[in-house]
Amino acid sequence: MIDYSERIAAIEQYLSKLDFPTEPKNLYDPIQYFLAIGGKRIRPLFTILSAELFNVSLNEALAGAAALELFHNFTLIHDDIMDKAPIRRGFPTVHEKWNPDIAILSGDVLMIHAFHELSVYPPNTFKKLSSMLNQTAIEVCIGQRMDMDFERIPSVNESDYIEMIRLKTSVLLGCACAFGGIMGGGNDTSINALYHFGEQLGIAFQIQDDILDAFGDAEKVGKQVGGDILFDKKTILYTTFQSMASESNKAEFFRLTNTSEQEKISGIKNLYKDTGVLEYCTKTQRRYHNNAMDFIAKVECPQSNYNLINLAEYIMNRSY
Amino acid sequence: MIDYSERIAAIEQYLSKLDFPTEPKNLYDPIQYFLAIGGKRIRPLFTILSAELFNVSLNEALAGAAALELFHNFTLIHDDIMDKAPIRRGFPTVHEKWNPDIAILSGDVLMIHAFHELSVYPPNTFKKLSSMLNQTAIEVCIGQRMDMDFERIPSVNESDYIEMIRLKTSVLLGCACAFGGIMGGGNDTSINALYHFGEQLGIAFQIQDDILDAFGDAEKVGKQVGGDILFDKKTILYTTFQSMASESNKAEFFRLTNTSEQEKISGIKNLYKDTGVLEYCTKTQRRYHNNAMDFIAKVECPQSNYNLINLAEYIMNRSY
Repeated sequence: MIDYSERIAAIEQYLSKLDFPTEPKNLYDPIQYFLAIGGKRIRPLFTILSAELFNVSLNEALAGAAALELFHNFTLIHDDIMDKAPIRRGFPTVHEKWNPDIAILSGDVLMIHAFHELSVYPPNTFKKLSSMLNQTAIEVCIGQRMDMDFERIPSVNESDYIEMIRLKTSVLLGCACAFGGIMGGGNDTSINALYHFGEQLGIAFQIQDDILDAFGDAEKVGKQVGGDILFDKKTILYTTFQSMASESNKAEFFRLTNTSEQEKISGIKNLYKDTGVLEYCTKTQRRYHNNAMDFIAKVECPQSNYNLINLAEYIMNRSY
Repeated sequence: MIDYSERIAAIEQYLSKLDFPTEPKNLYDPIQYFLAIGGKRIRPLFTILSAELFNVSLNEALAGAAALELFHNFTLIHDDIMDKAPIRRGFPTVHEKWNPDIAILSGDVLMIHAFHELSVYPPNTFKKLSSMLNQTAIEVCIGQRMDMDFERIPSVNESDYIEMIRLKTSVLLGCACAFGGIMGGGNDTSINALYHFGEQLGIAFQIQDDILDAFGDAEKVGKQVGGDILFDKKTILYTTFQSMASESNKAEFFRLTNTSEQEKISGIKNLYKDTGVLEYCTKTQRRYHNNAMDFIAKVECPQSNYNLINLAEYIMNRSY
């Protein structure tokens, strides 16, 4: 594993020095708070590594990288209100620590600041980056809406589920990678390939997240395994089970939903294994991972993509 | 009064033909609904008239004009959630007709679409328009936060109040006018003068709104006069009274707050007249109006500003 700590430290420093106004406190304190409670800064790191393919310096890439991190944090603040989530990254969410009205408005202004970060780039680059972020931002909202709508319908098919995660989370990783290509003046084929590399990797990553929530190593996750099963979340495992399982498997699933926490989790995990659901989902995940690798190979750039592939492998190989 | 109906019809047609996705319905139906319930389209009209100063055609100006109308509608959808307002323009607000979660996300995506409208302009113009809207959007959020914070403090001084209305509403009118100058390739002095024309006019307009709520003609307003007094809203009249009134006037004001609706409204209106508050506020309003006229005179452009001044006079002379 390459050491990315210097680049991440540069992102952290850049974020901590953003010159947000200090007033009104009820607008900007929540933003400073939320940015300070962390996050893995995966998206800006992908932007920086993509930019490096075209010899773009860390300093030049930071504003665009930060734009994505700010945008991502805006989505979290608003999603947390809609999901009524009390905790994020181990800390109270903004609407919990302040109130929903404050979380709405601080989220709004944070999104505007995300776009504002791009203004350091010259007009042609600015327009390309803005258009890319704009299109992505619209898709992220559509994905969040689909996710919320899915909660209220009995079952979701696999392609709708994949489309939802593609829009809600993966396109932003695609945008992060494309940003590097745009900054570096890459040709359209390369920018497009970088975009799809990030997008397909994002889908693989999200599928893996669903799998690890049920089958990950509890010690490494640092939380109880099986939360998604316990709360009947419509994951890729659930979705696949609904389409693959026999009537008797479904009856057994239904019986398990009304048992103890422990029995429900281990019973449904066994069902997912015995019916081939786990294997199917693992294959699906690998397919998207392979797609990503096919796309990265198409990027025409002066520098080796070793660091970028290494980061992709690292986030895909975590067992937590 | 010039007839602006053709231009307004063009705005309406442009807005009705925006190619929003049709799905997800819970994301885009609220937007279509909200845009269809109307509004006076004042901001886009100012953009179009400002653009005409520089021979920019209606067709060329429409995307920028629409961006401002979309942005304005986004702020209304989110403000209505925060203000718990049930009705807007005589129709149920989005969070009432659907729910607050839907209103948050539809507002979010509407704001992104506002910025997206600007993408029809070439890179240099695009960057100037985006930066202007971006800066304005940040200020509008700050103004909305100040307004909400003011509700929770006992009194607000005049300059803080003016700064709040400048940010919450007037800068967007400034932005609307500056947009015309930017589209037309006006020089910095002219763009700046157009911005301040709109901004100062916006302040005058907002002060007039406060005055008319108490002293307007009930028939022309089409609603009960005195609503702001009844609900103890911190208007320019209230703010001025708090700083100008003697202790005995304040005691009388306090006594009136606990009387019948009718007595409260007419008693406080009399207090505002007798203590010179109404006269002072009317003068303040005229001062900002005059500032606006000074700024418009500084714009260097090939066409007469007659239409623009006419519109400004029209909106300032309404007695409702």
